[in-house]
Formats: sequence, C-alpha cells, structure tokens
Amino acid sequence: MPFENYSIIESTLREGEQFSTATFTPAQKLEIAGILDDFGVEMIEMTSPSASPQSEADIRAITSAGLNARILTHIRCNRDDAARALDTGVDGLDVVIGTSPQLMQHSHGRNIRQIIDLAADVMRYIREQKPDIILRFSTEDTFRSRESDLLRVYLSVADLGLVDRLGVADTVGVALPTQVYAMVGQLVRLTGLDIEFHGHNDSGCAIANACAALEAGATHIDTTVLGIGERNGITPLGGLVARLYTIRREYVAKYKLALLPQIDQLIADMCQIDIPFNNYVTGSSAFMHKAGIHAKAVLADPTTYEILKPEDFGLSREIAIGHRLTGWNAMRERARSLGLSLTDDTVRDVTQTVKRLADDRPLSIAEVDALLLQAAGGDLR
Amino acid sequence: MPFENYSIIESTLREGEQFSTATFTPAQKLEIAGILDDFGVEMIEMTSPSASPQSEADIRAITSAGLNARILTHIRCNRDDAARALDTGVDGLDVVIGTSPQLMQHSHGRNIRQIIDLAADVMRYIREQKPDIILRFSTEDTFRSRESDLLRVYLSVADLGLVDRLGVADTVGVALPTQVYAMVGQLVRLTGLDIEFHGHNDSGCAIANACAALEAGATHIDTTVLGIGERNGITPLGGLVARLYTIRREYVAKYKLALLPQIDQLIADMCQIDIPFNNYVTGSSAFMHKAGIHAKAVLADPTTYEILKPEDFGLSREIAIGHRLTGWNAMRERARSLGLSLTDDTVRDVTQTVKRLADDRPLSIAEVDALLLQAAGGDLR
Repeated sequence: MPFENYSIIESTLREGEQFSTATFTPAQKLEIAGILDDFGVEMIEMTSPSASPQSEADIRAITSAGLNARILTHIRCNRDDAARALDTGVDGLDVVIGTSPQLMQHSHGRNIRQIIDLAADVMRYIREQKPDIILRFSTEDTFRSRESDLLRVYLSVADLGLVDRLGVADTVGVALPTQVYAMVGQLVRLTGLDIEFHGHNDSGCAIANACAALEAGATHIDTTVLGIGERNGITPLGGLVARLYTIRREYVAKYKLALLPQIDQLIADMCQIDIPFNNYVTGSSAFMHKAGIHAKAVLADPTTYEILKPEDFGLSREIAIGHRLTGWNAMRERARSLGLSLTDDTVRDVTQTVKRLADDRPLSIAEVDALLLQAAGGDLR
Repeated sequence: MPFENYSIIESTLREGEQFSTATFTPAQKLEIAGILDDFGVEMIEMTSPSASPQSEADIRAITSAGLNARILTHIRCNRDDAARALDTGVDGLDVVIGTSPQLMQHSHGRNIRQIIDLAADVMRYIREQKPDIILRFSTEDTFRSRESDLLRVYLSVADLGLVDRLGVADTVGVALPTQVYAMVGQLVRLTGLDIEFHGHNDSGCAIANACAALEAGATHIDTTVLGIGERNGITPLGGLVARLYTIRREYVAKYKLALLPQIDQLIADMCQIDIPFNNYVTGSSAFMHKAGIHAKAVLADPTTYEILKPEDFGLSREIAIGHRLTGWNAMRERARSLGLSLTDDTVRDVTQTVKRLADDRPLSIAEVDALLLQAAGGDLR
C-alpha cells in the first residue's frame, strides 16, 4: 500500500552540506545524526569521502556511533569513489550519474551506451567487494533525460540483479507531480525494485512530488532539515511529515514528531539562518489565527482551521485579537479568560473600539485587556 | 489551452492582511497595489469594508487610483456585507461561505439547503444593485466538504445565471494536486464558468495545487507576495511564477519579472520579516551553486543546474568555491578570471589545499585568491 511502507533517507549531511552556509564540524555532524536517529529516520546519507579528508573521517565517526539508522554515502559512478566509500564501513552506497543531455555533455562526457557499461562495471565491483552492502543506482536530472535513455539505463542496471534500489532525481526542480507519478510507477512495474525519489524545490513542487512518488509506489524519499541543499534545496523533513500527517496521521506515527521544532532550530542555528516565517509546522505563523471568523471557529473547535494539531509537535496555537480584522467571538473568549462577565452588546462595542484603534496600529494584548477591564468597570455584575 | 489564459488574483491586501505581522497603512496599501499593478497582475483583492473603517476607506482610495488591475473585495455571503462593498465602487465581489461540516457547524450554523437559499438571495441582490459587477461565488474549505454538498451548491449557484466565476478553496491546506485537478475539472465541465483556485500551504502543496487547477482548466489563481496569509499562508506570487516559467517561459511573459525582487523585499520590510533563505527566485540561495560537480557544469552551461534564468528576474548566479565540496574546474575558472595561467596540475594542487583548509572553516574568496596567486608565483609563465 502507498504510504504504509516507506523510509526517509535524511540527507542533511550530504545534500544539506551543499547549502550555501552549511559547514558542519565533526561534532555537529554527530549531533545532527544523533537527533535524526532519535526522531526515527531510517537512513542517513553523508557526503562522499572523496570530497575531502574530513568528510571521510566524519563517515567513519558516524558509522561507529551505534545509531539505529543505516548510514549511506552518496558517490559518483566510478571505482575510485566506490573503493574509498566501501573502506569507510558504511551500510550502503548511493551511486549517481547524470543522464540528461545537459549533464552528459557537461558533467561527465559519456553517452548512454558508456553509462550503461560503466554502471555495470561499478555495480559488479561494489557487489564483489561487499556482497551485503545496500546498493542504490540513480540517474541524475531524470526529468530532463530522454525517457528511452532512462529505460535503457534502468532496465540494464536492474537486469544485473545487483542493486537494491533505483533512484529518480529531480535535480533542477522542474518535475510536476503527474510526471513523477508516471516515472516512479513505470519503474515499480518494470523492475520490482525499491524506488527512491529525490526532488529539488526550485519551482515549489518538492513536497507534492515526493508525495506523488509514494502514491506511485516509491519506497524511499530524500529529505533534509528545513529543505537545505543546492540552490533553494529539496523536500524538507518537516514539510514531508506535515504532508503525510494530513493524509493520515498514522503514516508518520513511527517518528518522534515532538522533536521537529528542536531539529529545525538546530540546523537553523548551525547554518546561521532563520527558520522561514512560513515554514511547515515550525514557522512562527504556522499555528497563528488572525481573522475574526477564523478565531471564532478555532475557539469553538480547532479542527475548523487546523489540519495539523500543534500539540502533536510539542507546540501550541495562538489567536491574535488586537488587530483590525478581529471579531467579537474572540474578544468574548478573552473577556471570559480574564474572568469578566460582559454582555454580548458590551463585547461588540469593545470589538468595534479595538478595530477602530487598530486601524492605526495593532494593539498589544495588554491594551485589549485594558479596554475589556474598562468596559467591565461600567458593566460588572 | 491550460496555462495560456489565466489571471492572477493578487490577495496580499486581503489574505496577506491576515498574516500575523501584516498591518498595512493606507500609504503602504497604495504602494503595494501600485507595484503589483506595474508587475501586471490582473486583479487585486482587498479586505472587506466590513472589517474596519480604515479597510473601507482603503478600498475607496485604491479603486480611485487609476490602476489597470481590477479591484475586488472579499466578503461573507450576506446582504449587509454586499451592500457596504458595492458602495465602495469596487470592480468585483468575491463572495464566500463555508461548506465543510466543520465550518457549517462553527462558522455560520447553516445547512446546505440554507446555504443554497442564502447564496441565491445574495447573488440576486448584488446583481440587481450592480448589473455589471464581476461576481464570484466560492465555497470555503472545499476539500473537506462532501462532494454531493459541493455539487448541489455550485450547480444551484451556476443555474442562477448571475455569477461570472466559481471559487474552489483549500482553506486548511489539505488538498492533493490530484484532488484539485478532479474538482476543478468537474466544475469546468459541469458549469462552463470561470474557475478560481485559492490554496493554503500547511502541507506544502499550494503551488502544485495551483498548477493542477490550471491544468484542469481553472482561469484564476489567488496569490500573495511571499505567500503571506493565515497560518503559513497560500500560493506565493513568486513561487507560482517560478512554477509556470519552468513549464514554459511564455506563460509568464506577460508579467514584469524583474520587479519580483523589489516586490518581495517591499512586503518583507513592511511585515518585518526576512525573505526566507529558500524562497523561490528571491531567496538568498536560489541561484547559489556549491558542490564541485555543480560548479563545473554551471560554468560550462548554466542550464545544467538552473531551470530559471536569474537574469530574467534581474538577479545573478553565484558560485561558491572556498569550501570542502569545491572542485578543480571552478578553481581553474577563478584562476582565469584573475588573469593567472596555471597548469591543470597546479590548479588540482590548490584545490586539494582549499579542501583541506576548508575542512576546518570555509575560506573567503580573498583567501582562495591568495592561494591561487601564491601558486602562480612559483608557476608563472
């Protein structure tokens, strides 16, 4: 069944490192891996050991840290990178090679025939060295590749009988959910292998595309914390969780949701960025209700305007009342919480006063309370 | 044809006002409307005049400002709100009423039969008062409403022959693109009326849903600048533009794209928020390339890893090279731009030095340049 048997490949320590301000120290990498493991992600992907000496040392440190999550590293499709990666003791290798005309020309210079031969050689080499390693083969820039090229490559690799998982990558953030659904569904039908989706967010569909991949039978989704990565990043961990939660809360029950605010803040601090005001779940406004009709209904029943329960994430909702869009139901509720017993007419009068005053500038909650108390002074029972 | 004949209903002055920190002064509203008009949005939606005295005055000011965009206001489905709105001289009314079980119980207390009767009464009243006004009827919380209820309401309203446009609203941010496609497509087939989509972003599909709506034949999409609105907001103007641009650049050729950075910054400043680091087009990292393989390919041909051209938005790309993921191609390019003629072996040596040093902390561009100059000192031709 879609959504019931999926794993998160958390790539903050690989794709996330490619974000402009991300430079994680060894201690920070251990802290990130630790909290992601505690949250419950199934796999953690790390930068290739070929990137730098410290990158290699960091993989060794994290594979030795005794985490539940499987530790993967992401490498180019060649024997040298594979040999270095195998030597680190990782649980799995994520091998990638570009198949779009753009990347074949400017990234590695090989044609499809050569890619197929190279992939066969590298996959055989890896499997010989470590028969039980988790092995993934992915194309890069899948959605600008020719479909016939993709099928030749994927079917050749699948026929080797050596890989556990095929990867589909929207490297430039151009795919539409319908395209992801079609491509993933086709690979599921044709190969029967596990399928992974990796999606950039340049045009705003990274979450929808990940969801479409799962609907089509994908088994693995790549995420990073806050979505950090090359350019504006990929599917965010918290956003994917929010998406699946709203479809069916049970789909994310395996994760410690209440850790999400701490995880997002940790990465924001390490990268010296702010959590976006509009971030999923943990943005400053995610559970803020403002317009009068919203406030009224949320006070009666939060599910009227909330599809995510803030308390499931260790958070709480906020109802803003000192502004020009305020309504009298929210004002009545505030009066009650202050222990004031006002008639409905009085509450309506105070509401109009607040609206008039707030047309100049928003009132603080103390100012709203003062108006309510003042009204109660002439109206106390 | 989908995508070829759509209009943006820019709702920063309505939905956007419902964002927690948004309180626009009359002068700010004029400035926002002016720049959106210059950008080329077809319609501007404003807060109901029933919200507060200033809200009413602001509509009058903007309808008198001589903009090309049509000015709409968004009202509850009742005669009082309609009468106040009609009196302001707006070009159109966007009428809304909740149809989900949650909102029928806690927002207005009416059942479907009563909603149908009320809608008929209010639509007739409005059309009598202003025969040529642009009139939209929308349900609220469409995607948690019963499909049979929706069809009864929409078909009844369409049968009146009085409205120009029907609205579909994902009020709590729960819809999936396939659901939006199905609902919009159904309304297009059944009514032949213009269809508008309004989508919240709580679970990350606001852009994908807007795009699915257009694919299904929707004619109008609601946006706000930076997506500001209740909770974490709705489809962002810049994000929708990025999405349509990546499908076909001509779909957004009617807008002044180079104004987008200024528009996003204007609203960020007015709301005292930062543009999110990962914002579409205008986020700090949107055109930043970091990993060595990305930098190499982008230097050869930017389309390898860029689906949006930064120069179309008055922006430029940036290639980061002083970090552990750097590559020798980007380093060679930097040496060339400094007028240095280094052998490939020397460039590779400097690259390894940069990687080793950057394992501790990223190097500034000046530090990278110093290493290149130092290498050239012993290697100058």
